Amino acid sequence: MRQPPGRGQRSSGERKPREERWPELIEVATEVFYEKGYEAASLQGIASRLGILKGSLYYYIQSKEDLLFEVIKSVHEEGLANIESLATGDGDALQRLRKVIVGHIDHECGNLKKTAVFLHELQALAPDRQAQILGGEHAYRGVFSNLVATGQKEGLIPEGLDPKLAALWILGSMNWVYRWFRPGGEFTARTIGEQFAEMTIRGLAVADLQAPGAVPGEQPAG
Amino acid sequence: MRQPPGRGQRSSGERKPREERWPELIEVATEVFYEKGYEAASLQGIASRLGILKGSLYYYIQSKEDLLFEVIKSVHEEGLANIESLATGDGDALQRLRKVIVGHIDHECGNLKKTAVFLHELQALAPDRQAQILGGEHAYRGVFSNLVATGQKEGLIPEGLDPKLAALWILGSMNWVYRWFRPGGEFTARTIGEQFAEMTIRGLAVADLQAPGAVPGEQPAG
Repeated sequence: MRQPPGRGQRSSGERKPREERWPELIEVATEVFYEKGYEAASLQGIASRLGILKGSLYYYIQSKEDLLFEVIKSVHEEGLANIESLATGDGDALQRLRKVIVGHIDHECGNLKKTAVFLHELQALAPDRQAQILGGEHAYRGVFSNLVATGQKEGLIPEGLDPKLAALWILGSMNWVYRWFRPGGEFTARTIGEQFAEMTIRGLAVADLQAPGAVPGEQPAG
Repeated sequence: MRQPPGRGQRSSGERKPREERWPELIEVATEVFYEKGYEAASLQGIASRLGILKGSLYYYIQSKEDLLFEVIKSVHEEGLANIESLATGDGDALQRLRKVIVGHIDHECGNLKKTAVFLHELQALAPDRQAQILGGEHAYRGVFSNLVATGQKEGLIPEGLDPKLAALWILGSMNWVYRWFRPGGEFTARTIGEQFAEMTIRGLAVADLQAPGAVPGEQPAG
């Protein structure tokens, strides 16, 4: 996996090895950005919460923006790797889409604070770094639009649907979850994922629907 | 279209009647909050753009937070009134839901900056004001969950779907649009609204789905 950036292997009593400290730094930075917002957050506050001197942070990063970039990049890369692996498994396009939706919502609900920081603070990054992340965001959307296009080739999804619009429709419903999901609350991530996947697959699948809005045929037992 | 207020209108003619100035103030405050973010925005900057003295703003509001509250409240109330009127029209629940989705996306795409300020800056308000808006947010969600529950009573939507989860699923897909919609871009608000409504209605409607990956009438696990 990737090596955390560092300025060499200096060490002192205070310093844990880089590879131990790095995930902890990302975790704490995420919490501070989440609680205070990026603008109001300070490297001093992050260092204090880690129990290290502010100066020691410069061993890992050069600025607060570096840290925001690393937080956003980490949740983005993990999320993308997660759905890419689910999207390339067994099954037809709709079966794989179902797994991707359930898996993505599970990942999001397990990374609520990182997701919130990503979605709220992206614009605080310099333009080139935003572009770097946004390239990834298009990769993200591409996973969904490719599944929809594949489903169309497989005859499972009507040709008339625009795969890009369908992908944005799916992404919106999923990416909204971090705003209302509460761990230990009314719904588990699994319940949300299963029901969302069910509605989404129905929404995309070729079906014997009459004109939508008109009364369809028989109600299935259940 | 509207004329930018000029500095020449100052002194004796500076104060327009409140009813005239107010919508202009909300419009300009929205733009400044959108461009700079709430934290970095200043009453001085807003006054300058209006071509009035900063002190004159206190004729309308007492603080920057007042102004944020008014911006958020206005887009929220307009949006809610819009969907409530569409939800209570003619037709069965799915027909009305279709109109609500198309109408809401149209309203959102016509109010991109206000929507962005609402969704990004809500947490900058004092807790009691957040609660006041969030009460309205529940009213918002209620329009959708009520339509779903009505559709279930009408036999158009499977009983097993949770109306609240269905409402959150719909809201997410729609509320995400402001992040990627561009006026004059690839898709019109109408095209987005129509395709989103189509997929959503299919996703909710009782149907004889044949597609692998989804079993009709089967309840989501969990």
